[in-house]
Amino acid sequence: MAESMKGLKRTHRCAELSSVNTGEKVTVMGWVQKNRNKGGIVFVDLRDRSGILQIVFEGEDKAELIEKAAKLRSEFVIAVVGNVEARSGAVNENLATGEIEIRAEELRILSESETPPFPIEENSKTKEELRLKYRYLDLRRPDLQRNLMMRSKVATLTRQFLSEEGFLEIETPVLGKSTPEGARDYLVPSRIHPGSFYGLPQSPQLFKQLLMCSGYDRYFQIAKCFRDEDLRADRQPEFTQIDMELSFVDVDDVIDVNERLLAKLFKEVLDVEVTLPIPRMTWQEAMDRYGSDKPDTRFGMELTDVTDTVKDCEFVVFKGAIENGGTVRGINAKGQGGMPRKKIDKLVDFAKDFGAKGLAYIALQTDGTVKSSFAKFMTEGQMQNLIQAMAGEPGDLLLFAADKNKVVWDVLGNLRLEIAKQMEILNKDEYKFVWVTEFPLLEWSDEQNRFMAMHHPFTMPMEEDLKYIDDDPGRVRAKAYDIVLNGNEIGGGSVRIFQNDIQEKMFEVLGFTKEQAYEQFGFLLDAFKYGVPPHAGLAYGLDRMVMLMAKEDSIRDVMAFPKVKDASCLMTEAPSEVDDKQLEELGLEKCSAE
Amino acid sequence: MAESMKGLKRTHRCAELSSVNTGEKVTVMGWVQKNRNKGGIVFVDLRDRSGILQIVFEGEDKAELIEKAAKLRSEFVIAVVGNVEARSGAVNENLATGEIEIRAEELRILSESETPPFPIEENSKTKEELRLKYRYLDLRRPDLQRNLMMRSKVATLTRQFLSEEGFLEIETPVLGKSTPEGARDYLVPSRIHPGSFYGLPQSPQLFKQLLMCSGYDRYFQIAKCFRDEDLRADRQPEFTQIDMELSFVDVDDVIDVNERLLAKLFKEVLDVEVTLPIPRMTWQEAMDRYGSDKPDTRFGMELTDVTDTVKDCEFVVFKGAIENGGTVRGINAKGQGGMPRKKIDKLVDFAKDFGAKGLAYIALQTDGTVKSSFAKFMTEGQMQNLIQAMAGEPGDLLLFAADKNKVVWDVLGNLRLEIAKQMEILNKDEYKFVWVTEFPLLEWSDEQNRFMAMHHPFTMPMEEDLKYIDDDPGRVRAKAYDIVLNGNEIGGGSVRIFQNDIQEKMFEVLGFTKEQAYEQFGFLLDAFKYGVPPHAGLAYGLDRMVMLMAKEDSIRDVMAFPKVKDASCLMTEAPSEVDDKQLEELGLEKCSAE
Repeated sequence: MAESMKGLKRTHRCAELSSVNTGEKVTVMGWVQKNRNKGGIVFVDLRDRSGILQIVFEGEDKAELIEKAAKLRSEFVIAVVGNVEARSGAVNENLATGEIEIRAEELRILSESETPPFPIEENSKTKEELRLKYRYLDLRRPDLQRNLMMRSKVATLTRQFLSEEGFLEIETPVLGKSTPEGARDYLVPSRIHPGSFYGLPQSPQLFKQLLMCSGYDRYFQIAKCFRDEDLRADRQPEFTQIDMELSFVDVDDVIDVNERLLAKLFKEVLDVEVTLPIPRMTWQEAMDRYGSDKPDTRFGMELTDVTDTVKDCEFVVFKGAIENGGTVRGINAKGQGGMPRKKIDKLVDFAKDFGAKGLAYIALQTDGTVKSSFAKFMTEGQMQNLIQAMAGEPGDLLLFAADKNKVVWDVLGNLRLEIAKQMEILNKDEYKFVWVTEFPLLEWSDEQNRFMAMHHPFTMPMEEDLKYIDDDPGRVRAKAYDIVLNGNEIGGGSVRIFQNDIQEKMFEVLGFTKEQAYEQFGFLLDAFKYGVPPHAGLAYGLDRMVMLMAKEDSIRDVMAFPKVKDASCLMTEAPSEVDDKQLEELGLEKCSAE
Repeated sequence: MAESMKGLKRTHRCAELSSVNTGEKVTVMGWVQKNRNKGGIVFVDLRDRSGILQIVFEGEDKAELIEKAAKLRSEFVIAVVGNVEARSGAVNENLATGEIEIRAEELRILSESETPPFPIEENSKTKEELRLKYRYLDLRRPDLQRNLMMRSKVATLTRQFLSEEGFLEIETPVLGKSTPEGARDYLVPSRIHPGSFYGLPQSPQLFKQLLMCSGYDRYFQIAKCFRDEDLRADRQPEFTQIDMELSFVDVDDVIDVNERLLAKLFKEVLDVEVTLPIPRMTWQEAMDRYGSDKPDTRFGMELTDVTDTVKDCEFVVFKGAIENGGTVRGINAKGQGGMPRKKIDKLVDFAKDFGAKGLAYIALQTDGTVKSSFAKFMTEGQMQNLIQAMAGEPGDLLLFAADKNKVVWDVLGNLRLEIAKQMEILNKDEYKFVWVTEFPLLEWSDEQNRFMAMHHPFTMPMEEDLKYIDDDPGRVRAKAYDIVLNGNEIGGGSVRIFQNDIQEKMFEVLGFTKEQAYEQFGFLLDAFKYGVPPHAGLAYGLDRMVMLMAKEDSIRDVMAFPKVKDASCLMTEAPSEVDDKQLEELGLEKCSAE
């Protein structure tokens, strides 16, 4: 039965004690990690969020106390009053408190525990489903505790920095207006207006722009955002953004304040120095060099355009691609020339997953011989030129894709990452940032047969490209920027359109009628009639940023109560059925069709 | 047409400049507040969130510049480059920048403005509906800007304080499980699980208790909460809580940390000293003295129980109430004895709105005579005793209610506030805090014919009262506490049940079957099997707290984008209709019945 803590007051968390406290009488409380009985002396490892502390129950006059301690089991919650002493046994160098122990004088069992369904320990091998069902136990594990403490620290430091920089934290509505543009909204039926719905925000985009119209100058919010998507590995129905917007600024101002924010976070949380300024790369350069708009710059293996070098060869794959307006590009996997044929075949399959029709290769053997899938279509001189263009040396593996640029980039960009993984050259302790700038304003959607906004419809075109917007909209670059860390986009933003005429033109290019634009964004277009400052902003995916900082592979490991792939919570069993009466109040019923 | 700010960089916000900057060349940007042309010299008041700055356009060589400035209209957004000079005209003592002006050398019009639908000014007389429709303009008004800046400051200081006190900020889900207990949830239909729903949280109560089970020790969150209620004047469908929970603590620990938080907030935001410790009062004392569990202690006019004094009189209203187990209590409205009969009649009507059958009064005239609604039923001696019991003096108005305690408290508690309002003795600059403690655990609901939890079902009964829980549950007091400011409950909380057996007993008393309790709260009851620390917490209504600090009458004035009484947003027109296709994806259709 549970004892009361009446009359006791905790004096320290477990790992707040050290040899400095030797001789002090202390009261500690926490969970029993383990319990050993060595010849009538009971040793208990007591755990709280700070760490582990050893308690000793020993003494001729303490038989009753020792007996009580001997019966403790894992995960019991106890309070102990005792004295801090130097360890009688060997010092434990793995513990912060390894030099001391508490000699117990009083023990209270505040709460008992059944045997947990899995052990509470670092690097659990327990299946994730079981861990998520008992998330309240999973969250006791020291690695998850470190992650959530890191997340809290990142949020705290971010708020502190942005406040000092003159940003105001302003809350925007969660019950908002549903807009069909972009991903699917979560809807909330209105009871007072049956048949009408709120939409949960995919981001506070419109509200933060309105706050700039209203003169708040610098806004930020650590905001929950929602997307009803089919979940991929690393997506959650609700996620958190560090969202900000600034008035009277251009690209450089946004980049400046964010570089200082990132440098502060990485220094104070990880003791990592971020060298400023962070390198910048246009979207075009990122695609040409890395085949990706989120390049992992921790390693080279850059793309080389060999279109000119091979343009006269007879290899139909190269020739055909070039004739169709495409290019031929390659990467040089240094030292991989000896890769077995089977492994190369797997790379070919991998390339096909990204749309390649095939993958041409030249394996340069260390003995000077050459294995190649297409040598027979080339002259000796053409081969030598190609190898030279790729800076190929004995022992290298050269891989080529030939297709439209989009496919070539995608194939080689992903292949580059895959090979780096196989070569185990990706170092999680290394943090390489890069800004990617000058994104295309629009991208063509074959599916929708129209241009779509690459970032969102409020992104400012580059002034020098505005002239193309009617006749060649695909050529217009945007004042948009992403911040990329180790091949992950951790944030992105843009300078916004603040002129009503350009905003209306943008909607026109996106295929909105004036009526449609007004129906959805009328309040923004109206706001733009009354004096709007130039403004720009940026938003980080907090979950992913903390995931990278914590060196985890899933954002579920940096969220307290994540959902699984079907968007359900294994612990609470949400979503769940509700009474028909509740639906009726909302003016809804379940489809009878099913 | 909009000019670009290219090549310009703002050097200061408007009110960051003062005579210290005299002689400096500066670049400022903002909105035109007003524009006067005095004999060829143009004066522009430029506004940003910091305040107002005067710009002067003058000079023989500046004809073109002056002409451009003369055409500026209210709410145009402009950038000005110029020199800081001492004012040539009279110093404006109402402005922080009243000693200086900017002599303009360059003017750019960044954005033009149509004439706004209402003037952008302090203390707007514009109808709230119009202001909310154009909220982006309303939010430009200096009073709303001060409020939102104050709110941001309160949030920042709160986070800073709680972080320093060892609290971790941990985010809990917005897409949660719907529970029928308590107010009505907002529901979110699941697309992946048609016919199932998430519930938006009314508070993070269960999650924060689980975080204590998981050993996070001290948690806080500034969290959005949701209630689908019929809106009263001061309610919003979404509102914000400062939410916290602590492990290994009892009532005093929670009160201690929160008193220090409140003292810090009121000192740093308002320069108000909160004397600690804040007085405490049991619920019983609050009801007996103030007729309210959220007493406004800025003034007296306390309730006096005169049941004993009048128990032998022949006045049937008093007699009947006492015979039915009720009481007779009164308040003394000092100096209101001369109140005209009509006004007293209005107070009687007011009392009836709160359930009184009537209101008995004694008006003591300054000439020594007595007017009373019930003197004829009393002996001279009984009247004298009653007046004496009420400490009545010539010029006082004594008001009496006789009924069951609940009605008497409610009537006199509200009457007391109403009279104080009429007397204009409520000082908004005075901040009187009081803790109300030892609330009843349960209250009887005639409507549901069962006991309901007064706070929530997880509140710990007082140990000394546990013995009554089976036979006289209404007598059990709870370890619950509210923090009351000037008659408003700004926060409340409790020590939680952490023992499975007591929690199950509590559900039993509330009329849950074991199955119902497990269906809704099974994960909590399961969690309680694995070692739970004693824990307690508190949550503030941030909106209401900031409203009181800003001396506003509505929480709408301290929220950026509030909704109106029918839970709609006049600016975005949310909630709105959605495509039938979207409903179909959710497995729902509109009720055909209507």
